[in-house]
Amino acid sequence: MSEPDIFGVITPDAQGLVPVIAQQHDTGEVLMVAWMNREALAETLATGQVCYFSRSRNGLWRKGETSGQRQRLVELRVDCDGDTLLALVDQTGVACHTGRRSCFYRAVRQGELVEIARPLVSPDELYGHEHGHGHSHG
Amino acid sequence: MSEPDIFGVITPDAQGLVPVIAQQHDTGEVLMVAWMNREALAETLATGQVCYFSRSRNGLWRKGETSGQRQRLVELRVDCDGDTLLALVDQTGVACHTGRRSCFYRAVRQGELVEIARPLVSPDELYGHEHGHGHSHG
Repeated sequence: MSEPDIFGVITPDAQGLVPVIAQQHDTGEVLMVAWMNREALAETLATGQVCYFSRSRNGLWRKGETSGQRQRLVELRVDCDGDTLLALVDQTGVACHTGRRSCFYRAVRQGELVEIARPLVSPDELYGHEHGHGHSHG
Repeated sequence: MSEPDIFGVITPDAQGLVPVIAQQHDTGEVLMVAWMNREALAETLATGQVCYFSRSRNGLWRKGETSGQRQRLVELRVDCDGDTLLALVDQTGVACHTGRRSCFYRAVRQGELVEIARPLVSPDELYGHEHGHGHSHG
């Protein structure tokens, strides 16, 4: 698909970004939410590997480039308003920088905010010690 | 749960809003994305019926109040950064103002943007003729 086809229905924000929900294609698990600009979306569609735009690093973020936890694009969908994308993906390993499969690992249950998933790998394993303690992009 | 517990981990935007993904709790279908402010979130947790904040109407949007297509809250989750909520819901009828079950009814397939779901009800049935042609909130 050429870029204009999909961009014709997308309404990015003032920064040229659109939020993207990544969902595991077979289990339906919502893994994470991140952002794409035009370039990230074009690369994702061209390569079949999900590429976001990192607002904190102000550049393309090829998911899994550092951590190996890549996302293969299975299908890209867009909502009625064109202001949110849904990426059905096949997630290698974990999506969350905390080492958990999904970023949505805390839930309100019986009136308390509780953790409902544990890390499957340590952030050190994902990024190495030199990566520092900031919010890493895997 | 008291309001501060969940708000302690949430980082709303400059408008005091946080995006919310609504997902059908049993099928995993991503239905829609909307916004909540503090008041909408508190009401949702207190009543068990999902209430959003409508940016276009600048007020609380009790999902289904007009259309009858309500969302019962099954579980509320928050992501690692605290900047996105995931609401597992039981959707009555359809989530989308177009009459489709999900707002994500268009997909990139074989290089084309195609509709992958049809309306189950007409917008006229959802909102009545007097509702006008703007983007309705069901």
